[in-house]
Amino acid sequence: MYFHRQELQHSATPEKPDAVYARKLQEVLGGQYGEISVAMQYQFQAWNMHMPGKYRDLVFGIGAEEMGHVEMLAIMIAQLLEKAPLGITEEAVQNDPTVAAVIGGTDIQHGIVAGAGARPVDSMGNPWQGSFITASGNLLADFTANANAEMQGRVQVARLYHQTDDHGVKDLLAFLLARDTMHQNQWMAAAAELQEEGLEKLPVPSNFPLDKEDRDVAYQYINFSDGKKAGDGSWASGPTPDGKGEFSYLPEPPAGVPMPPPTHPDARFYGTTELPNTVEKLAGRAQDALHKE
Amino acid sequence: MYFHRQELQHSATPEKPDAVYARKLQEVLGGQYGEISVAMQYQFQAWNMHMPGKYRDLVFGIGAEEMGHVEMLAIMIAQLLEKAPLGITEEAVQNDPTVAAVIGGTDIQHGIVAGAGARPVDSMGNPWQGSFITASGNLLADFTANANAEMQGRVQVARLYHQTDDHGVKDLLAFLLARDTMHQNQWMAAAAELQEEGLEKLPVPSNFPLDKEDRDVAYQYINFSDGKKAGDGSWASGPTPDGKGEFSYLPEPPAGVPMPPPTHPDARFYGTTELPNTVEKLAGRAQDALHKE
Amino acid sequence: MYFHRQELQHSATPEKPDAVYARKLQEVLGGQYGEISVAMQYQFQAWNMHMPGKYRDLVFGIGAEEMGHVEMLAIMIAQLLEKAPLGITEEAVQNDPTVAAVIGGTDIQHGIVAGAGARPVDSMGNPWQGSFITASGNLLADFTANANAEMQGRVQVARLYHQTDDHGVKDLLAFLLARDTMHQNQWMAAAAELQEEGLEKLPVPSNFPLDKEDRDVAYQYINFSDGKKAGDGSWASGPTPDGKGEFSYLPEPPAGVPMPPPTHPDARFYGTTELPNTVEKLAGRAQDALHKE
Amino acid sequence: MYFHRQELQHSATPEKPDAVYARKLQEVLGGQYGEISVAMQYQFQAWNMHMPGKYRDLVFGIGAEEMGHVEMLAIMIAQLLEKAPLGITEEAVQNDPTVAAVIGGTDIQHGIVAGAGARPVDSMGNPWQGSFITASGNLLADFTANANAEMQGRVQVARLYHQTDDHGVKDLLAFLLARDTMHQNQWMAAAAELQEEGLEKLPVPSNFPLDKEDRDVAYQYINFSDGKKAGDGSWASGPTPDGKGEFSYLPEPPAGVPMPPPTHPDARFYGTTELPNTVEKLAGRAQDALHKE
Amino acid sequence: MYFHRQELQHSATPEKPDAVYARKLQEVLGGQYGEISVAMQYQFQAWNMHMPGKYRDLVFGIGAEEMGHVEMLAIMIAQLLEKAPLGITEEAVQNDPTVAAVIGGTDIQHGIVAGAGARPVDSMGNPWQGSFITASGNLLADFTANANAEMQGRVQVARLYHQTDDHGVKDLLAFLLARDTMHQNQWMAAAAELQEEGLEKLPVPSNFPLDKEDRDVAYQYINFSDGKKAGDGSWASGPTPDGKGEFSYLPEPPAGVPMPPPTHPDARFYGTTELPNTVEKLAGRAQDALHKE
Amino acid sequence: MYFHRQELQHSATPEKPDAVYARKLQEVLGGQYGEISVAMQYQFQAWNMHMPGKYRDLVFGIGAEEMGHVEMLAIMIAQLLEKAPLGITEEAVQNDPTVAAVIGGTDIQHGIVAGAGARPVDSMGNPWQGSFITASGNLLADFTANANAEMQGRVQVARLYHQTDDHGVKDLLAFLLARDTMHQNQWMAAAAELQEEGLEKLPVPSNFPLDKEDRDVAYQYINFSDGKKAGDGSWASGPTPDGKGEFSYLPEPPAGVPMPPPTHPDARFYGTTELPNTVEKLAGRAQDALHKE
Repeated sequence: MYFHRQELQHSATPEKPDAVYARKLQEVLGGQYGEISVAMQYQFQAWNMHMPGKYRDLVFGIGAEEMGHVEMLAIMIAQLLEKAPLGITEEAVQNDPTVAAVIGGTDIQHGIVAGAGARPVDSMGNPWQGSFITASGNLLADFTANANAEMQGRVQVARLYHQTDDHGVKDLLAFLLARDTMHQNQWMAAAAELQEEGLEKLPVPSNFPLDKEDRDVAYQYINFSDGKKAGDGSWASGPTPDGKGEFSYLPEPPAGVPMPPPTHPDARFYGTTELPNTVEKLAGRAQDALHKE
Repeated sequence: MYFHRQELQHSATPEKPDAVYARKLQEVLGGQYGEISVAMQYQFQAWNMHMPGKYRDLVFGIGAEEMGHVEMLAIMIAQLLEKAPLGITEEAVQNDPTVAAVIGGTDIQHGIVAGAGARPVDSMGNPWQGSFITASGNLLADFTANANAEMQGRVQVARLYHQTDDHGVKDLLAFLLARDTMHQNQWMAAAAELQEEGLEKLPVPSNFPLDKEDRDVAYQYINFSDGKKAGDGSWASGPTPDGKGEFSYLPEPPAGVPMPPPTHPDARFYGTTELPNTVEKLAGRAQDALHKE
Repeated sequence: MYFHRQELQHSATPEKPDAVYARKLQEVLGGQYGEISVAMQYQFQAWNMHMPGKYRDLVFGIGAEEMGHVEMLAIMIAQLLEKAPLGITEEAVQNDPTVAAVIGGTDIQHGIVAGAGARPVDSMGNPWQGSFITASGNLLADFTANANAEMQGRVQVARLYHQTDDHGVKDLLAFLLARDTMHQNQWMAAAAELQEEGLEKLPVPSNFPLDKEDRDVAYQYINFSDGKKAGDGSWASGPTPDGKGEFSYLPEPPAGVPMPPPTHPDARFYGTTELPNTVEKLAGRAQDALHKE
Repeated sequence: MYFHRQELQHSATPEKPDAVYARKLQEVLGGQYGEISVAMQYQFQAWNMHMPGKYRDLVFGIGAEEMGHVEMLAIMIAQLLEKAPLGITEEAVQNDPTVAAVIGGTDIQHGIVAGAGARPVDSMGNPWQGSFITASGNLLADFTANANAEMQGRVQVARLYHQTDDHGVKDLLAFLLARDTMHQNQWMAAAAELQEEGLEKLPVPSNFPLDKEDRDVAYQYINFSDGKKAGDGSWASGPTPDGKGEFSYLPEPPAGVPMPPPTHPDARFYGTTELPNTVEKLAGRAQDALHKE
Repeated sequence: MYFHRQELQHSATPEKPDAVYARKLQEVLGGQYGEISVAMQYQFQAWNMHMPGKYRDLVFGIGAEEMGHVEMLAIMIAQLLEKAPLGITEEAVQNDPTVAAVIGGTDIQHGIVAGAGARPVDSMGNPWQGSFITASGNLLADFTANANAEMQGRVQVARLYHQTDDHGVKDLLAFLLARDTMHQNQWMAAAAELQEEGLEKLPVPSNFPLDKEDRDVAYQYINFSDGKKAGDGSWASGPTPDGKGEFSYLPEPPAGVPMPPPTHPDARFYGTTELPNTVEKLAGRAQDALHKE
Repeated sequence: MYFHRQELQHSATPEKPDAVYARKLQEVLGGQYGEISVAMQYQFQAWNMHMPGKYRDLVFGIGAEEMGHVEMLAIMIAQLLEKAPLGITEEAVQNDPTVAAVIGGTDIQHGIVAGAGARPVDSMGNPWQGSFITASGNLLADFTANANAEMQGRVQVARLYHQTDDHGVKDLLAFLLARDTMHQNQWMAAAAELQEEGLEKLPVPSNFPLDKEDRDVAYQYINFSDGKKAGDGSWASGPTPDGKGEFSYLPEPPAGVPMPPPTHPDARFYGTTELPNTVEKLAGRAQDALHKE
């Protein structure tokens, strides 16, 4: 069950209107790595989790916090839009190229669809979608997904930090940056703890029987481009992070195997084949088949 | 530049047709974590990369390999479909409930749209889309995204391994599992190397000035659910993975701040407000505004 | 701020596994009118609302409840999948056509992607998306959207009720049906109250100056099909619901106006026009334009 | 069958070019509540309707009109684009910041893809999609959806009305506003008539046996936020609009029920569980399972 | 303007229910090359066309016919669903594996969302979308798109023809096949006529000044794969279809040019670069930049 | 298998930064007819092809070239963005309306998401998707799709050519225009060769038995609009391009057939029907049905 309190975790009030920046903030609200994504991702991980205890409490504990981050951003966006020029004509203002420039950079739907409100979309207006999230049930994989989400999210907030001079906005972003710092650290710690406790290891999924995979190529770097420097990395020689092998380096791929011959499905799929020399023959074959119908 | 050779990296021939399994394989061809995703992700990371050398050679070197994995899966799928029942009526066969069951589980577009060929979609028929990939230019974030992609991908292939008895299919999956093992290891190694070389560290982006973020909450676990066990984890006390702080644990959130008052945008957006007691007043205001037009 | 409690509003435990039904339940979790939609819709309406008080408290108060409904469905789905056949091969079972039929009707990604967990998608596997929701800031319009959402949702749950014999599932659906009954009633009451208080009336938006619209056609039924019975409805004669006019009925559309002439954009868009008789002329024109470049 | 006449229902000619406004108009052509949506929605409702007569004649009669509205908007957009700057370089003009601002606010695909023509997208360039429409077969639900669509549509057109000074555009919008007034009134009248005739009542679907739903919670307002004013509304006490109950108000949710224990699917889905203390054990279990394969 | 008549162009009544086939028919109603696509494509081409006369009359004349094809398919689908098992439980029937198989192959939303009605989606449940259509304003390009659409559509209908024994369905498909035959022929004729009249020629757009393109590579087949037989085709030697050159064949690509050096955007985008050896330096640079803020 | 070489087929370096143009170039990288589309389309056609030899070598040979075109555009875009204003605040510059205008016209995600890098999206920010491509297995249909793709692509590149003065960009576009010229010619030649060799003819699929289609309407132009000039075209009289008939012209459609009666699905789908006069009766019916459950 979820409960709402009409408070914010941190203040979210801009100094002045800025409709272009409101659009930019949509990225971290409704984009691939925005707050809706992490809120939904953590909650689905919690609902699908296969064990009680500290890991499930963790994803539940943060999932609800992220819902509150969505709320802070939505409320910030509504305020940035409140008195901003969104296209309503005011004669004096319309002819000002600066105003025209501002309007050109806004999310058109902020005005026409939402009436100066936030929307569940990214900064280019693409709707948030369920395919942004990850919840596989394998916790080492999923916590790595979470670490990535918090990294990408913090990179985006840092970029946004440099795109405004508004102290109210910057104050909220400073808060979000810190929470992303926390969440990055925490998913890294949780991923390490899973491995220390032996619940999951590299390579994920670690309980797939290794003798079933093709071990000959399990630690080979095979270079399909012509750059030569990748051979200098720690991924090209030495022990592997999973502790089960040694990296080796192939400067170019070994010879492959021949392609299997092209397929020839039922003639009634009307694919083009080399078999008949003439369409007439094919038509005959199809007609034979049709006689049964 | 890309070059193609009409060979496969590994054999990709099933023992027998299986249209339902062909549909399942679409997941690792065209799904969120399928081979198109990693191929595109690594190549976009390469094209956008801001430094020459081993890291760029690495993403180029693997990106082209993944294109070849897309090819192996597409060719496998076409063969699984070649002689399989895809709905073409054969009287004897149509009334067999097993056949009907098989047909019910196929990708309908495999037959009607592709004529028994592979498609750029996932196992539920959703088209592959550009929003599946990640390429931010920050390499520690991106390599973490890559590690996650290879983990999720290997989990999916492992699950698929148990859903067929076909030795030809299993042989290809064993190869793909091993390459995913390699690539997981390699992204973990590359992420570690980036940090050792000081190119990037935790928290990502590490060169954002930490004094600009709200350090008071940068290492606090704040529990927004009522589970108590998350306090037992290494993410709730002790040093943080970024080496810059100590985790602390708050069993519940501190008091928040009041919400800012609701916004009142221009009346000509026709949002509902409490200000006028009657619609007539609002209409008057709007009409006044309209007189200028 | 949102808080989570590790309890459910109502029990959500099936009697037995049923993977096909788990897929069907996805519709009311992640479909156009599923619980994610109403949860998000009410919360965005709250965040964007332009007045404090009972209407905003109302959307906040229900929005958080709907998040809990998402949770109950996700947890129900995970249990329906727990012991169900999802494609993992068991020799005895694979050859049973009933099992094959079941597997054919499942959401493939439930197994391969989510490891027997719920997903943010509808019953055909389409991801939930932000364009499912409505929050315009005009409350009479939005509450009508909400009433519709609760009606469509209750129709879908009622249909689902007849597609299972599982008492645990039916018990949860009986609860959801009742909550939909409440929410339908409540949005109808709220829409009526808005009008009684004069905050908004028909036609929405009521404060747009009516003399600016083309009043001649504001109450005319114009019949663009050849059915004659629409003239018998209360929408074809008598007073209009907005209390501001009388319906009239036109059995067929009056004569229209001529289409404006086709456009002729800049020749460098290379649209085909009748102006030049020969391509050469057009090329000449384009080349002239190019000389400036 | 559909027939086309090369006339427009109303004149649709702007006074002057305006590419930014052309983009804005795309919202009411191809957006969630644009004319394609209502045209498609009414036609699908007609094709799927389960009774002949006045209701079916009504949706057919308006569906075709809305196709003509799509046409008027498309033709208006093409004219707004005809002579407008769309990025074709003209040296003098490119350096004018006002022109640059205009170009910044245009739909880029209007120029590059459509050659100065209209497109089936909304104002942010998202393609129109089938999931924008509603046709459930339950007419009270669907007519409520229709009323909402006409309300949202009229709000959007009203907002657009204030974003241009072009008399030709305003003249078309005045016509569309009036038709939206008509259609709002008409769906309200039709929804009332359905109820008066006893074909459908609240709660929708009214013929679901009420004793099957959980009547204890069918009229309870349960407050999941901490605002207290929602208790003042007509939805918190007094008779319910469906005439079958009395609203009651719960200031906060009653205690919930415990969550069911986490699921433990087949080990071959490789979800992380608490059961084995070590990965080795899990691998053992998986290997046992594999021996059967 | 569009007008509707409550008749069908051809009878559209199946002999018996078939919910699986109803789902398959959705492909040619709402798929990439279904009837909604051609209806919308031709109408947008008409609205955007830059000349009056026979070509515009042609696209208008067929566009409205295709709307009627959408209608026939929708009505056929509703009838195929009318008495079909769609999941409503009937004890006797549920345990029949044939029925289970049928249900497994249906479009789940046909029952739960549409109440046994047609939907604007393809056979895998993907919503129809505006990006399926093409209307560039260049008529030779667009008529080639139309020819392709009619070819793909006829291939799909032909495949569907072999997937049913229902004479009512086959009768409708025989009609649609013939109309596709007509429309294929017609777009080929129209494309030829455009060229004969000199309105457009190959290469499209023919009025782009050829001396502005890189003529050295305008007729070279450059082989980026290792198959050698492509050199045998008429596209590898001899005169080109546009009449302006001679094909030549390069068995492999000539040497390329070096890649430009990697980019180094503003440090405040936090991309990873080789320039600083340590994160500290980068942080210093970023902090310097921040001092200005 | 695919191999990458760190070279470009042609130089791809702009003279100066231009973020607005970088966004425009996304259309031909990641749009419906961009280079990702043709690269993927040709490769899927190759993988699904049903015969070895020159046609398969052809699609393989070009498919890999198109991957290199994606690369050239991505690298060009990254350079156009390298030093361009993307929203990072510089006080002097922010107040310049020309700069504001530029920023308004950029792809916001170029900065915030990609850190000044290319993205797999079109010029309006829509992600590339698998539904952009065509691979049916019928080669005449598919080569026509390819010809269309190259025509649309060349039209778009030509339009883009006129939207920049940058010689570096124009030089790359001149190269791409020439390759599109080649590929248009080549698909036309290949389509002709298929027909000459009798592998496929008009109407596609030519081996569907013509006597199964409704030959009476196979060559009739039926005019569903009121324009009269379409009767003047070569598609309205004379021999048909498939050589199997004569076009005829019907100035208006013949009378249609009556619509079938509306469907009446199972009452438990809760569709509205005329049968019961009162909801009570319907509820009775539904309750009877429920007694079985």
